[in-house]
Amino acid sequence: MRRALALAEQAAEMGEVPVGALVVRNGEVIAEAGNRRERDRCATAHAELLAIEQACAAVGSWRLTDCTLYVTLEPCPMCAGTIVNARVGRVVFGCKDARAGAMGSVLNLPSYPLNHRPGVSMGVCEAECREVLQRFFRSRRTK
Amino acid sequence: MRRALALAEQAAEMGEVPVGALVVRNGEVIAEAGNRRERDRCATAHAELLAIEQACAAVGSWRLTDCTLYVTLEPCPMCAGTIVNARVGRVVFGCKDARAGAMGSVLNLPSYPLNHRPGVSMGVCEAECREVLQRFFRSRRTK
Repeated sequence: MRRALALAEQAAEMGEVPVGALVVRNGEVIAEAGNRRERDRCATAHAELLAIEQACAAVGSWRLTDCTLYVTLEPCPMCAGTIVNARVGRVVFGCKDARAGAMGSVLNLPSYPLNHRPGVSMGVCEAECREVLQRFFRSRRTK
Repeated sequence: MRRALALAEQAAEMGEVPVGALVVRNGEVIAEAGNRRERDRCATAHAELLAIEQACAAVGSWRLTDCTLYVTLEPCPMCAGTIVNARVGRVVFGCKDARAGAMGSVLNLPSYPLNHRPGVSMGVCEAECREVLQRFFRSRRTK
């Protein structure tokens, strides 16, 4: 999660909402990304989705059953749906997202009878993950 | 929707679950795609997501407020979440998806208090959209 936080910090420096994500398989980081929505001008360029696409390319399959995704912020519905579609085995996220979180906040996607139900852990480095977001939005408001 | 059906048929010929999607803006088709999940070995390569990414590139923005997405099958949670994130104004889909549909079947994403609530119409060319899927799965079972 420290590495995911560093990716979030890099995103913030580029004017992006600071979220970082990485995918681990057999103890090895096989994909990592920060949010790129503004730079790519693309609605799908969230950190989790980019990391999952990289991981699919690394594994050579759309199935990431034996992978764990680490992300600083609770995934939105798009990213939670991507996690289900990619059969990601486990998700570890830092802090909740009261506005768009789809793993317990606004809705809880893993509770629905879909093709796959990932394991979910939350609260890892929670304070740091929240702080990087709060700092970003504070600096925006004072600009 | 006839064009979306043709894209679905093309996907079937490539061994993909036949789903086709396109994005229309000011009466003009600005993006179109069929499902490519198997060929791309990528969990995010659904027709809707690919069409939305193309549309963002065409418009030069992650906001597709004045666009309509046509898709043969009810969007899954990932694609419904992408529709919300991209602020797609309106979605028209053909037939329901009882296994993974996120616009009324398994869940109804537009009913949650998220950033955006697209207009949704369903049932356009419903029988044809269902038939292309049924034919694909029938031919798979007999192989």
